[in-house]
Amino acid sequence: MPYQASAEQIRFILNEVVDFSKVAATERFAEATPDTVNAVLGEAGRIAAEIYAPVNRAGDLEPARLENGKLRSSPGYAEAFGALAEGGWIGLSSDPEYGGMGLPSTLNVAINEMLASGCLALQLNSLLTQGQIDALEHHASDALKALYLPKLNSGEWSGTMNLTEPQAGSDVGALTTRAERAEDGTYRITGQKIFITWGDSDFNANVCHLVLARLPDGGAGTRGISLFMVPKFLPDDSGNPGLANELRVVSLEHKMGIHGSPTCVMSFEGATGWLVGEEHKGMAAMFTMMNSARLNVGMQGVGIAEAALQKAAEYAAERNQMGAIIRHADVRRMLAIGRAETFAARAICLACAVALDLGRATGAEDWIARASFLTPIAKAHGTDVGCRVADLAVQVHGGMGFIEETGAAQYLRDVRITPIYEGTNGIQAMDLVGRKLMDDGAAAMALLDEILDTAKAAQSAQPELAHEVWQAAETLREATHLLLEQKMQDRFAGAVPFLAAFARVLGAHFHLRAAVAGGADHVTLARIYITRLLPQYLGDLAAAKAGPADLDALGDGAFSGHFA
Amino acid sequence: MPYQASAEQIRFILNEVVDFSKVAATERFAEATPDTVNAVLGEAGRIAAEIYAPVNRAGDLEPARLENGKLRSSPGYAEAFGALAEGGWIGLSSDPEYGGMGLPSTLNVAINEMLASGCLALQLNSLLTQGQIDALEHHASDALKALYLPKLNSGEWSGTMNLTEPQAGSDVGALTTRAERAEDGTYRITGQKIFITWGDSDFNANVCHLVLARLPDGGAGTRGISLFMVPKFLPDDSGNPGLANELRVVSLEHKMGIHGSPTCVMSFEGATGWLVGEEHKGMAAMFTMMNSARLNVGMQGVGIAEAALQKAAEYAAERNQMGAIIRHADVRRMLAIGRAETFAARAICLACAVALDLGRATGAEDWIARASFLTPIAKAHGTDVGCRVADLAVQVHGGMGFIEETGAAQYLRDVRITPIYEGTNGIQAMDLVGRKLMDDGAAAMALLDEILDTAKAAQSAQPELAHEVWQAAETLREATHLLLEQKMQDRFAGAVPFLAAFARVLGAHFHLRAAVAGGADHVTLARIYITRLLPQYLGDLAAAKAGPADLDALGDGAFSGHFA
Repeated sequence: MPYQASAEQIRFILNEVVDFSKVAATERFAEATPDTVNAVLGEAGRIAAEIYAPVNRAGDLEPARLENGKLRSSPGYAEAFGALAEGGWIGLSSDPEYGGMGLPSTLNVAINEMLASGCLALQLNSLLTQGQIDALEHHASDALKALYLPKLNSGEWSGTMNLTEPQAGSDVGALTTRAERAEDGTYRITGQKIFITWGDSDFNANVCHLVLARLPDGGAGTRGISLFMVPKFLPDDSGNPGLANELRVVSLEHKMGIHGSPTCVMSFEGATGWLVGEEHKGMAAMFTMMNSARLNVGMQGVGIAEAALQKAAEYAAERNQMGAIIRHADVRRMLAIGRAETFAARAICLACAVALDLGRATGAEDWIARASFLTPIAKAHGTDVGCRVADLAVQVHGGMGFIEETGAAQYLRDVRITPIYEGTNGIQAMDLVGRKLMDDGAAAMALLDEILDTAKAAQSAQPELAHEVWQAAETLREATHLLLEQKMQDRFAGAVPFLAAFARVLGAHFHLRAAVAGGADHVTLARIYITRLLPQYLGDLAAAKAGPADLDALGDGAFSGHFA
Repeated sequence: MPYQASAEQIRFILNEVVDFSKVAATERFAEATPDTVNAVLGEAGRIAAEIYAPVNRAGDLEPARLENGKLRSSPGYAEAFGALAEGGWIGLSSDPEYGGMGLPSTLNVAINEMLASGCLALQLNSLLTQGQIDALEHHASDALKALYLPKLNSGEWSGTMNLTEPQAGSDVGALTTRAERAEDGTYRITGQKIFITWGDSDFNANVCHLVLARLPDGGAGTRGISLFMVPKFLPDDSGNPGLANELRVVSLEHKMGIHGSPTCVMSFEGATGWLVGEEHKGMAAMFTMMNSARLNVGMQGVGIAEAALQKAAEYAAERNQMGAIIRHADVRRMLAIGRAETFAARAICLACAVALDLGRATGAEDWIARASFLTPIAKAHGTDVGCRVADLAVQVHGGMGFIEETGAAQYLRDVRITPIYEGTNGIQAMDLVGRKLMDDGAAAMALLDEILDTAKAAQSAQPELAHEVWQAAETLREATHLLLEQKMQDRFAGAVPFLAAFARVLGAHFHLRAAVAGGADHVTLARIYITRLLPQYLGDLAAAKAGPADLDALGDGAFSGHFA
């Protein structure tokens, strides 16, 4: 049985776990009625399962390639993308003034989970376009918006983000791509970019590159960087693709996974660009794009976890070794943990999306802060869960999991990029303990208060589970206070385990809500999460509090096995 | 800088952590003097680093393939294997009566770590041959020994193990391959086997298959199974490869990793075989082979961890993003954890090997029980660490980790088979809480007593670390008693986390010994392990004690997302 869309699971979480009704209650998102939500999830799920999933393996076997400098996408991708674009799905949560549908981004995030389950490599194309739409809506001039947004929303054109250079990865400020002012108000962009996802396409009539570059009077570091729209084809007077711009794809990377997604080395050779936002303030616009993308990358992890788990469950039901292996305790343990992890990660991502929508719809600072706090957790934990569950799914398959034709290995290879791109999970964790605690922990404490409220409300229905969650939240609160007393630099040594602990407690909290609202399986799953996975937060907090002294004390040679 | 052999690290553990001197003090292994050990490790390390490592990438890019039914191995493999064979390394710990060197298997295990670091796919060839040698030494007739052992020890011929069939994986007893008695005392073997590692070779003059099959009067299940030697070429009167036997490689699997290792579907079509051991008692002989292989597979995990970590440390030292990233706290954290994990897993495997050698040399029941208890831990934990550290190494590389030319991704893909083959890690854990606790926990308790002794001895030198280890061992003892009170079937639901917890405490214990005996870096590394990794045993024990009730209660549909 192929991948089945998770629309029903998403609907349960929206309705019973993350208060989506609050979004639908705002004026801005009044159209997001239960009927609309059902219709949207159902139809998008159909595309994911029936149109995207069937091309997933072909993309792995026949990667995107360059043929005389022209990109050839994997078999079936063009048609699958066409179905998505025709349905208007790319612009689902975009501004209706430019061809979008104006629905909550929560629904878009949910849909992106299902499309990622279907075909991660292809889903990246529309995902990056959506990020670009977001950035243009917030920062571009009206003229640029009018020219680009309708074509991006329709999927006629695609969008990319061009940050990374060989010497400038996590340190974006080290970039050297140059921009020069031209007399006609445009700019000339020159430089090389690497790791450009979908840097070219043979099923989008134009590929619109958002490029970070430095003007001659741009200072050093991130503050001297500007953002430019640099299309593959220069739009003619009617806004159609005209002359080719001075840019090209130099080569494609040979990667561990997502073979169907072309990862390009791009060369800009005096290419014509248009300024987006203000000069020297390009990072702000880029951050808009990246924040939207980060949550969605977390959801990619959830999507792969879901697809991999379904495949493993199906295999376990069919494979007989002294009875169907789905009846063996250790196989059940792996599947149950995979399901509990996937549920929790999905709830965290959707809670982040709900906060984002509520922030946008109401302008309320607390929702904005909530979304901002949850974004690095959603990204890092979602992608960690993606890797963990894909790994469990391989293990459930036994020897067959290592054989490529089974498909389990592809999920594991594909998902491995997600903890790396859009800011490594280490960067996410540093963002969490750094910028996201700069409010003296207000957003963190508000969230912990809410967890205590949940535990209190669940006390009569699920006393034992409620107690565990309450205790974990209190312990986490103490650890957060301890962290707040540390210098920022010292927190970084424990950032990743701190994020992991916070995610565990959040996950338990959402499971507790599900246990109260849902049926027997939800109660059982909550118990499995709370007794078998939540206790890991103890180990994580121990590591979170350890500080940097021992890491600094270890000689560099020891990493390579030369001990002093 | 390419892989550097870990001979010095191994020597430290042998001398200071796992009491190898006890092995050298036995009559049987009196030749294993410090000078011999140094020479052996040094020279084998040179082969691993200078001869095996250079062919590793070629094997990934140009997998073994079938050409008109003939196997073609990856470029450079034949020459690299030749160097190993010529040095007499394959028979290092084999019986000198048949061309072996009679040295302790501990040294062989150590060498296998380094060869696996160099080229896992190729190392598998000699590893399986060594397993076969072990099985033949214990179970074959003198005639078979005289014919096969010298040629296996010299590497002229290679050995394989043929257990798995499409319907018989972990359930070996379900196999259907038939054996029939021939009039000349040989047997005719008919059936299909899958997942046969190095099922053929173009640089071994003969490939000797040990095949499990059922005689017509063999009962159902594992007790009716016999073991046969079925060579690719029938030895002629002078013992040289003669007529081709009635067997062939049907196809090779397309795998996630170890591309250079041909994984064969084998067809036996009335092939001539010779009985090994007694009729219907083939499983006992096969277990000899598997037990030796299990420890060595654990060491494969250590070998990949070591090689991947070295690569990551080198990258981190050279990569500049706001200074060399090796100075960034989170990168240091990943490298330090990787190093601490690798040290602990190596010590566990070597401690198991020492117990094995002491059991063989002295016949003492407690050493035999110790080796038996540690084997599943060494296999499962070693391979888990291999996967975890290879994963960390990819993450240290950032985006470059996902690009195949870097080599980090290959380690991650290659090592992923190790938790699966030679008995999945789930099977190992069930072996631990099942068979290996059938002594009412005597072996486990003896080990815990020894940990307490270590903690006591370390109290003055490292009071804090000693206290943590002492407390963890006591907690683990309680958990072990709890497990012993459970029915065997119920233990299986917590087997994997129980094994993980035991490995954590063992790892901490070996780190503590190193902190007492070693220099500043060993003290720091022990502190890193004990403060950041050891506390994970709390979460593991919580899961270990959870029992099967919640797993059984969850509806099968829930695994696929259909909640009752």
